[in-house]
Amino acid sequence: MKKILVLNTGGTLSSIKSEHGLVPGIRSGDMMEELRMISKNLQLETEDFCSVDSSNFFPEDWAALAVRIAEVCREYHGIVVIHGTDTLAYTSSMLSFMLRGIPIPVVVTGSQLSIAHPVADALENCRGAVHMAASGCPGVFVAFNRKIILGCRASKVRTMSFDAFESINYPNIGEISSLGLHIRREYLPPACRDKTPEQLRESFQPRFAYSDRAFLLKLYPGIAPEIMDHLVQAGYRGVYIEGFGLGDMPFLKHNFVEAVHRAVERGVTVLAGSQCLYEGTNLTVYETGLKALSAGVIEARDMTAEAALTKLMWVLGQTNDPQKIRRYLEQNLTGERVQGW
Amino acid sequence: MKKILVLNTGGTLSSIKSEHGLVPGIRSGDMMEELRMISKNLQLETEDFCSVDSSNFFPEDWAALAVRIAEVCREYHGIVVIHGTDTLAYTSSMLSFMLRGIPIPVVVTGSQLSIAHPVADALENCRGAVHMAASGCPGVFVAFNRKIILGCRASKVRTMSFDAFESINYPNIGEISSLGLHIRREYLPPACRDKTPEQLRESFQPRFAYSDRAFLLKLYPGIAPEIMDHLVQAGYRGVYIEGFGLGDMPFLKHNFVEAVHRAVERGVTVLAGSQCLYEGTNLTVYETGLKALSAGVIEARDMTAEAALTKLMWVLGQTNDPQKIRRYLEQNLTGERVQGW
Repeated sequence: MKKILVLNTGGTLSSIKSEHGLVPGIRSGDMMEELRMISKNLQLETEDFCSVDSSNFFPEDWAALAVRIAEVCREYHGIVVIHGTDTLAYTSSMLSFMLRGIPIPVVVTGSQLSIAHPVADALENCRGAVHMAASGCPGVFVAFNRKIILGCRASKVRTMSFDAFESINYPNIGEISSLGLHIRREYLPPACRDKTPEQLRESFQPRFAYSDRAFLLKLYPGIAPEIMDHLVQAGYRGVYIEGFGLGDMPFLKHNFVEAVHRAVERGVTVLAGSQCLYEGTNLTVYETGLKALSAGVIEARDMTAEAALTKLMWVLGQTNDPQKIRRYLEQNLTGERVQGW
Repeated sequence: MKKILVLNTGGTLSSIKSEHGLVPGIRSGDMMEELRMISKNLQLETEDFCSVDSSNFFPEDWAALAVRIAEVCREYHGIVVIHGTDTLAYTSSMLSFMLRGIPIPVVVTGSQLSIAHPVADALENCRGAVHMAASGCPGVFVAFNRKIILGCRASKVRTMSFDAFESINYPNIGEISSLGLHIRREYLPPACRDKTPEQLRESFQPRFAYSDRAFLLKLYPGIAPEIMDHLVQAGYRGVYIEGFGLGDMPFLKHNFVEAVHRAVERGVTVLAGSQCLYEGTNLTVYETGLKALSAGVIEARDMTAEAALTKLMWVLGQTNDPQKIRRYLEQNLTGERVQGW
């Protein structure tokens, strides 16, 4: 019988009403009966990792969660992480980098309504997550609303609907329908797809280091370029910029590209993405993109904002060498970036 | 015969290849032949307002463009603005506020390929824009890919497809299909829907003032709250925050809500939106939202990021009175915010 660990971090799924609004409250043990009902042929264990609203889940929590998963991953066939939806995609993205090559499925899920609510999506999402965790399919995934999404491709796009998450610039890895759980193995990242479980178990080496000196900056018309100088002075080592359209940046009047160039000269890694949700960057089309490339930015291409930012933080934790930083960022590590140059 | 003015500001539609990538180049006069072909029963005039990539279109250009439109709007039945797609939705949003109650249609359009490209969407988009401009339907709109979107509801969501824009949290105002241009007047903002053209002509009072001391801040896990203090010190009067999920903000460890409170105490207007594209905020559900409300933030509700930021800039240009600022921001001025409390 397959052993699955359910790690609870809090979030709406386990939330209860309080005089301060909804707050995390239900412990994983209290959910056991419901969880067992949806996974009769599995041996389920639960563990409370923490109990917070995911707006209060921080980078140090990503690392601690990844450490815990790596510690126990050889004892289980799969791990489910229950998480608030607000920052779920940041967590699943960072876990994808920290736990790259993990030999078992790690499936992050949550819900838009508490498991205590009579019409909640909570159990349905847990059901998808638990069954994906039992699939033997290695990697980090998000299970939500009958979809299985690669962890580094998930993004929360709707604040109220049950269909809160989408797989951005990449197909769903799986779907739950009248055919049951159908997994499209051809879309798994090469490392997960091509290695046998034994090879993965031997080669798995988690890497928990990251830098918290990365900033996410979304451009808007008229943004004062001095913000880049402030970030340099404040000691940031990396900035992920959500530029316009294909990743473009202003260079007339309020010359933002020049400020980017000053930051790059001071050793700051600048990763350039798009503030458009879909289809990513191509800085080689317009003068406004080419000038940014000349200033030394690295393109995010088809990475999500969540993957781009967490990858930048993770890469800056691996090395200080500008060449290696660029190589990491331009490489497809775990399915987060497949568009070629 | 109806008179339509085509104001060209540059962008991809009028771009040409150069050794620096695509740059704005074609003058509006050179497009006249093609434009006349798609609007035979209209008297078309063109004017070059400027010729820039819209990443280089700034708040001062919004105001100058609005001034020009207001100057000439009584001489034409409608005005088409040709604009780069990168910041088009910011421009159409700001024009919606500056030109609120304009008696004629102002239709902003652009394209994903230059009008000189054999398979471009340029002429098709111009055709939609020109015909919307001739519709007599007053207000500011975006015409793109056979859709007519309220100017303050448009957002660029795709960087490469012709279907680059969506109407966010609001139905399309019109669509072009085998039925021709079909306009849903019931979705026009009340001011445009309920007044006669004569009433609109009499009451129209454009307001061009705005403040450029507004900042757009997108949250991410671990964001250092000190950025808020920096913005206060740098003299910003308003911050539009893209929070998590329903607009939530962290208050444990890295206490962002406390920093927001400090900024509000210093007289900064903080408008709280969501970084999720769809469905907007509701800060009354979770403790992470209620604490932000207690700190003094104003909710963006269903406003787009582009509308929320430009509205904040515009409102700060109208008044310094905190009560009036709040009333403006919480009010539905021109269709940008219809969700109730």
